[in-house]
Amino acid sequence: MDIDKANSEACERMMESRPLVVGLGKALEVIPDMREDLLLHAGPPITWERASGPMRGAITGALIFEGKAKDEKSAQALVESGKIALEPCHHHQAVGPMAGVICSSMSVYILEDTVHGNKSFSNLNEGYGKVLRYGAYSEDVLERLRWMEDVMAPVLNDAIQASEGIDIRALLAEALHMGDEGHNRNKAGSVLFTKILAPFIVRVTKDSEVAAQIIQNLGDNALSVLNPVMAACKAMVDAAHGIKGSTIVSVMARNGTDFGIRISGLGDRWFTAPVAVPKGLYFPGFTEEDASGDIGDSTITETAGIGGFAMASAPAIVTFVSGTPRDAINATLEMYEICFTEHKYFTMPPLDFRGTPTGIDIRKIVEKGITPRVNTGIAHKDAGVGQVGAGLVRPPMEMFEQALVAFAEEYKI
Amino acid sequence: MDIDKANSEACERMMESRPLVVGLGKALEVIPDMREDLLLHAGPPITWERASGPMRGAITGALIFEGKAKDEKSAQALVESGKIALEPCHHHQAVGPMAGVICSSMSVYILEDTVHGNKSFSNLNEGYGKVLRYGAYSEDVLERLRWMEDVMAPVLNDAIQASEGIDIRALLAEALHMGDEGHNRNKAGSVLFTKILAPFIVRVTKDSEVAAQIIQNLGDNALSVLNPVMAACKAMVDAAHGIKGSTIVSVMARNGTDFGIRISGLGDRWFTAPVAVPKGLYFPGFTEEDASGDIGDSTITETAGIGGFAMASAPAIVTFVSGTPRDAINATLEMYEICFTEHKYFTMPPLDFRGTPTGIDIRKIVEKGITPRVNTGIAHKDAGVGQVGAGLVRPPMEMFEQALVAFAEEYKI
Repeated sequence: MDIDKANSEACERMMESRPLVVGLGKALEVIPDMREDLLLHAGPPITWERASGPMRGAITGALIFEGKAKDEKSAQALVESGKIALEPCHHHQAVGPMAGVICSSMSVYILEDTVHGNKSFSNLNEGYGKVLRYGAYSEDVLERLRWMEDVMAPVLNDAIQASEGIDIRALLAEALHMGDEGHNRNKAGSVLFTKILAPFIVRVTKDSEVAAQIIQNLGDNALSVLNPVMAACKAMVDAAHGIKGSTIVSVMARNGTDFGIRISGLGDRWFTAPVAVPKGLYFPGFTEEDASGDIGDSTITETAGIGGFAMASAPAIVTFVSGTPRDAINATLEMYEICFTEHKYFTMPPLDFRGTPTGIDIRKIVEKGITPRVNTGIAHKDAGVGQVGAGLVRPPMEMFEQALVAFAEEYKI
Repeated sequence: MDIDKANSEACERMMESRPLVVGLGKALEVIPDMREDLLLHAGPPITWERASGPMRGAITGALIFEGKAKDEKSAQALVESGKIALEPCHHHQAVGPMAGVICSSMSVYILEDTVHGNKSFSNLNEGYGKVLRYGAYSEDVLERLRWMEDVMAPVLNDAIQASEGIDIRALLAEALHMGDEGHNRNKAGSVLFTKILAPFIVRVTKDSEVAAQIIQNLGDNALSVLNPVMAACKAMVDAAHGIKGSTIVSVMARNGTDFGIRISGLGDRWFTAPVAVPKGLYFPGFTEEDASGDIGDSTITETAGIGGFAMASAPAIVTFVSGTPRDAINATLEMYEICFTEHKYFTMPPLDFRGTPTGIDIRKIVEKGITPRVNTGIAHKDAGVGQVGAGLVRPPMEMFEQALVAFAEEYKI
């Protein structure tokens, strides 16, 4: 069996994927197999019992947002009774940052890979601090979600429909030349996204004050493009998934309790292990004692060759996640050790325009003893608090070892 | 005499200067001593006879724009007869990129240094290619200028008035962390400028199509913030000018024929020498044979510690001006050799957040034999053509030698 050939095909498909944001729609109407009694969440499958604080907080907030629960207790009862089911975003071609909870009445970005035809989805970004995706669900959090849902989402959909679709691969390629790495630093990408959308927003909105507020919200939120970027990465890795004989990682995702991966040549099986706690910088008043375990689908960025893998492009990120610009370069250089190839379209000026390390190969991880590097936000360990910092983390080695054993069994090597 | 103390004061004033864009106005109404029969231009004083092709082209275009001439011949006649006078922008607290021609009916950005109270001015940016500032004056060039004047400028003025003023020092500090150097690469700065202004533009404009067009124009022009940036740098160096005993360069400017400098401790006297031709990358169909001599007031950016001096922050610029990312870092490192200090607010992530080399000291230039490095656009040598490339250039050493001799005479050293 020619594993290199399979991996080459997987990486080629990942890099040639060209996902456009083509609109927004209610999750219930656009996400495959979405149901009213279903909540999607980040990472591999999880139960209420094993869920982390921020995951429980986000589930509670989403059920209050839907009018189905009034507090954490009633949310817990609904989930434990089975009246509300929990399934990973990844089982529905979707991704969500941090807790990643998507409920049926939420609007989501719709992305379409114009090369392979597959679709992907992600919710809207709420900004920093006290937000649902970090497990906060106070009235101001819900108020913002309602404004995003009722005011912002319909305008964004109209604006995107009026455009020819927004090419996220092109946007990312440009943002990587402007100091972003596409995961924890999306400052350039978010202003580029805003400047592309703004003229369309103005044209499709009758009320100019509403148009102004939406443009301001997108422009001032340095993560506004994160969710479309994650959905684009999901489309890219989905294009690389399911290649017979490939050892390329096609999903990395965390639910706050478990880290889970999937492998291109091993179908939809998850390989999981307990998450680590990120090391990083904390907001004033918080310490590592407050931190939840690693959480979120945003590791889809590293899986697609950006994020922690492209840190060399983003030296200024160290003010947010700790370390020095030299560490950022070293992070990228180390990732070449475990990747199958270098990206054709994502290049890094500080490394002489070398392509980002792309296509994580479990063979190399196990052989070299090097696990992927991930940039991430840090959630408070308790439900209801929110973001407390940002930092760096690595997935547990044992998942990759399990996956390699399973690969040998599957292909009788 | 304590030159170091004088230089320290000059640099301190330069760095503490905090210029805000506070509005726009017609040059005739807002620029000090502006007159209807006067054209301002880049660089030190020049006559029609000695003017370069692009300078003649821009003078012609401005006089056609004003309805005072109909072609190059009639423009020449007006200038040579003395009916139209030519004076440097720098004699009027103004700066203009490339030919830098500002006529009385043009709108200009008004900047105010909130710390020292001085004002500065610059015109609006037209974008790349065939534009007045590169000496082009065909009907489409004039059409664009009229749209900018009649449609864009009034809206920008209203939008800026509705804001609390736009802090260009803060914007530049952010843009230097996003791969800009502030002179030839203003991609991040221009989208930041657009995202700040867009909500105000939407609020002050009745016609949403007009608002959309203006936002799109600002956002798609990766140099839209160049002119406000230049005016901000002018305000900064003006704050540093006139310090008794200071050897700091307070103006560097070129008119396409002569390079001119002024020194903080030597009043308003120009020291000049013939310009060089930049080395760089040419647009398809053009070569170094087509290039005009070095031109423009945009060297005010290097004078204020950004542009070529901050190239380490902008590795991606080498795709535009030639060279490698390592050359960009070396350019900045070399400039520390001839500068008095390091900037407090302009820092560069790739150099571990070191401040940019700031305060060019003519003593160091002459002692070390190192001239400043400048990033620049390249104009066609003939009137009427436009931009043909971008590259790097150095000012002639003899000006700095003349200035140092004059300094020794002035202060009887």
